[in-house]
Amino acid sequence: MHEIAPQKQAIQRLLQPASIAIIGASADLSKVNGRPLKHLLEKGYAGKILPVNPKYREIEGIPCYAQVADLPEAVDMAIIAVPASEVIAHVEALGQRGVAAAVIFSSGFGEMGAQGRSMELELQRAGERAGVRLLGPNCLGFINAFTNVYATFSQYADGETGGGPIAFVTQSGAFGTAIAALVRQRGLGLGYFINTGNEADLNFSELMLAVIEDPRIKVAAGYLEGVSDGEGLVRLARRCRELGKPLVLTKVGRLGAGARAAASHTGALAVEDTIFDSVTRQFGVLRARNEEQMLDMLEALAQPRECAGVGLGIATQSGGAGVMMADRAEEVGLVVPALNEATQRRLSAVMPAFGSSNNPVDVTGQFVARPELLLESVVALLDDPNIDIGIVWLQLMTAHVDKLVAIFSEIQARTTKPFFVCWVAAPKDALQRLRDLGIVVFGAGERAVEAAAALARYNKSRTAPVESKASMNYPRLNGQWKKGMVPCLDATEWLQAAGIPMAKVRLARDDDEAVNHWRDFSGAVAMKIESPDISHKTEVGGVLLKLNDESAVRDAMAQLLRNAAHHAPEARVCGALVQPMVDGHIELVMGVHRDPVFGAMVMVGFGGVLVEVLKDVSFRKAPFGLDEGLSMLAELRLSAMLDGVRGQPAVDRRAIAQMLVDVSQIAAAVPRLEELDLNPVRVGVQGPVAVDCVLVLSDETA
Amino acid sequence: MHEIAPQKQAIQRLLQPASIAIIGASADLSKVNGRPLKHLLEKGYAGKILPVNPKYREIEGIPCYAQVADLPEAVDMAIIAVPASEVIAHVEALGQRGVAAAVIFSSGFGEMGAQGRSMELELQRAGERAGVRLLGPNCLGFINAFTNVYATFSQYADGETGGGPIAFVTQSGAFGTAIAALVRQRGLGLGYFINTGNEADLNFSELMLAVIEDPRIKVAAGYLEGVSDGEGLVRLARRCRELGKPLVLTKVGRLGAGARAAASHTGALAVEDTIFDSVTRQFGVLRARNEEQMLDMLEALAQPRECAGVGLGIATQSGGAGVMMADRAEEVGLVVPALNEATQRRLSAVMPAFGSSNNPVDVTGQFVARPELLLESVVALLDDPNIDIGIVWLQLMTAHVDKLVAIFSEIQARTTKPFFVCWVAAPKDALQRLRDLGIVVFGAGERAVEAAAALARYNKSRTAPVESKASMNYPRLNGQWKKGMVPCLDATEWLQAAGIPMAKVRLARDDDEAVNHWRDFSGAVAMKIESPDISHKTEVGGVLLKLNDESAVRDAMAQLLRNAAHHAPEARVCGALVQPMVDGHIELVMGVHRDPVFGAMVMVGFGGVLVEVLKDVSFRKAPFGLDEGLSMLAELRLSAMLDGVRGQPAVDRRAIAQMLVDVSQIAAAVPRLEELDLNPVRVGVQGPVAVDCVLVLSDETA
Repeated sequence: MHEIAPQKQAIQRLLQPASIAIIGASADLSKVNGRPLKHLLEKGYAGKILPVNPKYREIEGIPCYAQVADLPEAVDMAIIAVPASEVIAHVEALGQRGVAAAVIFSSGFGEMGAQGRSMELELQRAGERAGVRLLGPNCLGFINAFTNVYATFSQYADGETGGGPIAFVTQSGAFGTAIAALVRQRGLGLGYFINTGNEADLNFSELMLAVIEDPRIKVAAGYLEGVSDGEGLVRLARRCRELGKPLVLTKVGRLGAGARAAASHTGALAVEDTIFDSVTRQFGVLRARNEEQMLDMLEALAQPRECAGVGLGIATQSGGAGVMMADRAEEVGLVVPALNEATQRRLSAVMPAFGSSNNPVDVTGQFVARPELLLESVVALLDDPNIDIGIVWLQLMTAHVDKLVAIFSEIQARTTKPFFVCWVAAPKDALQRLRDLGIVVFGAGERAVEAAAALARYNKSRTAPVESKASMNYPRLNGQWKKGMVPCLDATEWLQAAGIPMAKVRLARDDDEAVNHWRDFSGAVAMKIESPDISHKTEVGGVLLKLNDESAVRDAMAQLLRNAAHHAPEARVCGALVQPMVDGHIELVMGVHRDPVFGAMVMVGFGGVLVEVLKDVSFRKAPFGLDEGLSMLAELRLSAMLDGVRGQPAVDRRAIAQMLVDVSQIAAAVPRLEELDLNPVRVGVQGPVAVDCVLVLSDETA
Repeated sequence: MHEIAPQKQAIQRLLQPASIAIIGASADLSKVNGRPLKHLLEKGYAGKILPVNPKYREIEGIPCYAQVADLPEAVDMAIIAVPASEVIAHVEALGQRGVAAAVIFSSGFGEMGAQGRSMELELQRAGERAGVRLLGPNCLGFINAFTNVYATFSQYADGETGGGPIAFVTQSGAFGTAIAALVRQRGLGLGYFINTGNEADLNFSELMLAVIEDPRIKVAAGYLEGVSDGEGLVRLARRCRELGKPLVLTKVGRLGAGARAAASHTGALAVEDTIFDSVTRQFGVLRARNEEQMLDMLEALAQPRECAGVGLGIATQSGGAGVMMADRAEEVGLVVPALNEATQRRLSAVMPAFGSSNNPVDVTGQFVARPELLLESVVALLDDPNIDIGIVWLQLMTAHVDKLVAIFSEIQARTTKPFFVCWVAAPKDALQRLRDLGIVVFGAGERAVEAAAALARYNKSRTAPVESKASMNYPRLNGQWKKGMVPCLDATEWLQAAGIPMAKVRLARDDDEAVNHWRDFSGAVAMKIESPDISHKTEVGGVLLKLNDESAVRDAMAQLLRNAAHHAPEARVCGALVQPMVDGHIELVMGVHRDPVFGAMVMVGFGGVLVEVLKDVSFRKAPFGLDEGLSMLAELRLSAMLDGVRGQPAVDRRAIAQMLVDVSQIAAAVPRLEELDLNPVRVGVQGPVAVDCVLVLSDETA
């Protein structure tokens, strides 16, 4: 017998129980505390059921126990459906009786203000002390449809809930129930339905991690309202990738709480949803913007065929629908390639003169009279080496359902590439019959295209390079540096030593020193106020540029000190930094922000006024490798500027990406690095150079 | 009797016929040429039906005539369902028999290549000569559901086609049929269904203009694949606005043909779909991106309540659904306002402790036990003065349909503001019962929000300012100016005289003249090559900036001539323009492009590399007034830059908008103005000044 970690064992006992106690069970099976028993009986749960309630001797002929202590065995799992005030005592009793896990329906905890939150904390501690893992409180419970475990009072359980390849975990009860019902309407099957509620103990990622190990599960779907366990979510995403099971997430709160107060630009731009979006994309998660898109993605991902590339073949009976889908394909990262000559010949041989043998292929309505027209043209389309996935668009055809189902079935048999049917205003039984044949069907063209793009994106992400590990030998932080901003000169030297290309800089404590530095640099210099208390130098008139004679340098020194005294009278001023002017026609901003949920995040964007107005920035969780660095640059809306616009030369994307990789290595290796701005980073043909920096450290103990 | 223009009369006879001839009628009522008769009989057309076909003496007991000449009367309208080669002869015969209009099903015309196009042109001329207005060819025909006119073989006619408040005109037969079927599925009614086919004569806008006059029609919906009659579409949009009937259009080909070859930047940016999008928005048309969005908008617009503003009140039984809808609302131009104190008190009085009395209001699932909870909270929400429209979100509730229908019916009775129900995974009869009560229902939260936004946008557009007329006294064009580019110096002077703020400029034919101009301007100057053959001066090294001493000016003159000789050896060079350097921290580009479909279009955008990479530009059809000018600026993604970023001063939006208005007046008043670039337009605190221009004229006869 191989060993199972106790924690894992507890979750397994929760989700695959051989026996279930129902604490507070009611004889009224329509009530919240009666419904689990109703479902367990009706749907044929094969394990033991043990109701606990001092009011009854038996319910539905099943012996009922007065209290937990009376239970004749240590059941695998208990459902707790009692008032909030009684929950903790029951959890303690369960622990004493050797029960490893409980589902807590009861509300009246964290969702109820300060008092509720404190009771929830007590509950959490009680569970830890008693050795009982908890699902909830304030949750609808869960369903394991494979073994008919209905530890839930969700309305979803009222209908047909046959098992299937999708595991669905939801933080919301009501919205989650709605999504589960939509999954059922589509004829997709839910193997697991789990509502996590307040997550006093077990959270979204832990529960999903448990169920994706079930070999009957092919796709993981989740609905989130907030994430506190970023590392857990990343671990889940990694495991899904290892298992080859797509993870689709919908998270509400896209506009969210807005920017946090932060000392750095990077921090201000790191709004919660942006970070979530970046991290999930980085780790191969498919994010669905709402429940409809989630359902569409699940349709595409639950079918077994793989999409080897981004080439979409479209066959329609309407030129306009073809154009609409081709446009959408281009917007969502697919291409609608030209067909090769052999395919065009095959199409011409079967197509009527007024159809189109280009992609999209317009088969017109003639296939009603000549079914082979549709069959042969779609098979030819899918056989084309440029095509990786096909969509066939048609509408109504109420009188021809038999014929069409037969055609699609034959297409399915004669091809191996994935193809979707988009049947607008389809007769109802047509959809069901196609789904019974394992054929994916949509009701709107753009949605079919978006689902195809999700499948292609997923299959591509599976071949993405393995993750980078933090491996850098970085120079030690100076032990003298306290919490807060590191002096710019020190920070520059440290970053330079860590391999980040930084512009040369020297401190001048007076104008004579400044003049000497200017002479040494032999060329125009910039001068900047140096103070541990001033992070945004331009805002205090603390930056003067293009100084190239002695009097200008002396005047600048005086001017900087005057401006600092005027705008930041409290600031401790060390002098001014002198640095040579740096060439480069592109201005970027890079930075690090330590996100409370996901840890160190690296940012890049175009600098100057653009970063403020466009917020055209890209984030990745550190550390990462060159491919991720390059893809950060490719994500920027202004990305084309790197390749030279209006006669400007192209810059070296790899050099910029490598700088991002190095920043990510430092961010991962130095836990005290709280925030970093490299702003501006000037990029010319010779590569990127950071001209200024703000480095903020946390406590040494962090 | 009031007079009706003969043309209008013909369209009315087409759409409201008292008698219909069917040329090429078949006794097989399942065939294309048999189906109109089938539908007319089955659905009870009350007028006369006169089949024409030499093969039959009668069909279904109705006398059949051998040829058009045999018809016993000049019928109002004829359906032509014969091979393409026979169509023209029949049209001629119809004209001789005094028939004013015909629907031509036959395909084999313009859609069939060069030969078909030439036959279609012949058909068009035949119609004109014979005085017969034509719908089609290559169309499915039309339905007037009010009087049971089924001049169609569309599959849509096979089902229930009861009349209703929506007129739907479609250029696509297949896609149009699909949309009509979706309208039916939603329980919305189509009064008219018209497929325009190849539009050899009657086009989309003419037909829609005819049907929107029908008082039973409340909403106009159209599907377009291309527009050739831009003025017609604008006329339609204006008439819809006058009548207070919303016009919803879906047009495919968003990515379209891409940029046209054009001498100006403005022309290159004026891609077909961008222009369509700008013009439709300008004239109050609602554009739906696909058929699903069109249906959602029609739901919202077909109900009678008006939305007085953009304040959305949301009530849900799921906090997450509320957040999702609130986010979407913000993205699509609605606001989710805080509720006033009185409303909050009313809500607190009915709400359970764990619900939320903020907007979105979370009524939780408790309303099943306490129906008044939902009723009173939604009524309170809608009574709040900040709320203009409400959405109530719920899911499943299979066991509570009666209760919920009663609640929504009472909400409907107790309020006057529009409200939508979003019922996810609703029991089927629930939707129908609510729709029967005139309550709008959606199945997904974000879609309900988008529809609410469309209603708010429509109601707002009705109060938009009246259009501007061209009224400017502009200086006459110099009669010497031929087709093509006007010399920059001349163009600058003409534009200056027309009231456009232009930077001062003088022509220097040699370096002595250049030095004199520099002295006169007393400050740094720019120098630019002047040639009627060079439109993009920077690309030939033809612009030198910030020249401020005599030798620099002389060197510049020589350099410009050398560069021109090298990069544009064929160009006729007149010398160099000298102009003072213009201040201004903002760089814009403005221009005029004469679109072949919509006429003179005015553009504005941010200049420099941004216009190339971001394509952040806004267009309007000329002429227009100050409000449109301001809204063009507000549309730009970088719009916030005008208000000052990073310590830069704000600029005067009204001054820029007025410059756009003046450009639009010139564009409208001067038909020969083919293209104009004002690039760059520098804007500082003193207002906008155009620094350079390219003016291209068409032939004098244009």
